[in-house]
Amino acid sequence: MSSEPLPPGSPTPGSVRPGGRTARVRAAVLRATEDALVERGFSGLDLGDIAQRAEVGRTTVYRRWGTTTALVADLLADMAEQSLPRTHSGSLAEDLRANARLVQRTLADPRQGALFRAVLVAATCDTDAASALQRFYRARVDEWAPCVAEAVARGELPPDTDPAEVVRAVSAPLYYRMLTTPDPLDEAAADRAAAAAEAAARAGAHRR
Amino acid sequence: MSSEPLPPGSPTPGSVRPGGRTARVRAAVLRATEDALVERGFSGLDLGDIAQRAEVGRTTVYRRWGTTTALVADLLADMAEQSLPRTHSGSLAEDLRANARLVQRTLADPRQGALFRAVLVAATCDTDAASALQRFYRARVDEWAPCVAEAVARGELPPDTDPAEVVRAVSAPLYYRMLTTPDPLDEAAADRAAAAAEAAARAGAHRR
Repeated sequence: MSSEPLPPGSPTPGSVRPGGRTARVRAAVLRATEDALVERGFSGLDLGDIAQRAEVGRTTVYRRWGTTTALVADLLADMAEQSLPRTHSGSLAEDLRANARLVQRTLADPRQGALFRAVLVAATCDTDAASALQRFYRARVDEWAPCVAEAVARGELPPDTDPAEVVRAVSAPLYYRMLTTPDPLDEAAADRAAAAAEAAARAGAHRR
Repeated sequence: MSSEPLPPGSPTPGSVRPGGRTARVRAAVLRATEDALVERGFSGLDLGDIAQRAEVGRTTVYRRWGTTTALVADLLADMAEQSLPRTHSGSLAEDLRANARLVQRTLADPRQGALFRAVLVAATCDTDAASALQRFYRARVDEWAPCVAEAVARGELPPDTDPAEVVRAVSAPLYYRMLTTPDPLDEAAADRAAAAAEAAARAGAHRR
C-alpha cells in the first residue's frame, strides 16, 4: 500500500495491471478475445465486437491487431507467459500425474476447454495462429521437460530419453479423447495418460 | 464386362457407383464436399458452391442435406464405411506399426490431412458433426481393436487390457504432433507412437 496521498484521478493501487495504458488496453482486448472465442468460436470472432467488449476504440484494435488471427496469436503469446509453473515433487510418476491432471482440468473446464478448442481451430485456419499455438505448446513443454530430465539424471529413465516427447505423450491422449470421443475427460483418464507416458518412457519408447 | 449391347445413353459399366441416381448424387456431393473442405476449410463450406461443384441442382442439396454440418456428418458416415481394413500380421508390434503408419500417411498427405483438420474443426463447431466424427473414430477403433484382443488372447498383454484404449494410444501422439508442433509427421514418428502404445499396454497402463 502507498503511504503517499495519490493525485486525483489515479487508479486505486492494485486495480490495474502494471505497464500503463498500452498494457491495460492489451489486457482488456485479450480478455474480450477470450470471451468471444469461448462464446462464439474462432469463426465468430469480429474486431468491432472485440473493441466493444473491451470498451476500446475500434481504430485502436484495427491499428494494433488488424486481423482476428493476429488477435489470437497475441492471446496465445499471453497464454504462454501466464502458463502455470510445473510441480517439483521429486517423483516422475507424481510430476507426470500432476501435469496430466492440469491438462485434464483445463480441457474439462467449460470456459478453458472452449478456449483451447477455439485456438486449435484458429491454428488450422492460419499459419500465424499456428506458429503462435506451436510457441505456446513449446513453452508448456519446456516448463515441464525438466521433471523428465531430472528422472533421467536419477537413472529412472534411459539416458537418451527425449524429455519433450514424454511431456507431449502425457497430453496427447487427453486432447485426442476430447476431439474424437464422447467420453468424459475425468481424473481417471488423466492418471492413465500419465501412467502410459511413464511406462513407455521406462521401456525406452521415447528415446531420441 | 457386359456381353449385351447397352441401350443408348447408358453409363459405361464400372464408371459409376452402384445404387442408382440417388447414390450417384450422394457420391458426387460428398466428393465435392471433400474438395471444398480441402480447399477452403469448414468455415468456407457453402451449399450453393457444393451443388455447382457436384453438378447437382441446388434444390437437391438444400432439400437432402440442408446445412453444411449435415453434409460433413454424411461425409464422415461415408468415410467410416470406406475406412481401410486392418492388417493381420499375427504380431502385435507389427499390427500397431501398420496402424500408426496408416494414420501418419493419412495425416501427412496434403489432401487427406487438410480433410481431417477440416472435419475436426467442424466437430468443434456443431454437435451433429461431433457425433458423426465420434462414430467415424469408433468405427476405426472397432476395426483395429481385434489385433489387440488377439494379443491379449495370446497372453502378450494383461488380460484386462482395453483394446480400444491401445488403438487410440497409437493415433493420439500423431494427431497431437500435427496440431501443436511444426515437426514433420514422418514414419519415425509413427513407429515411436506404435512402440509407446505397445510398451504402455505391456506394462498394464491400458487396463480397463
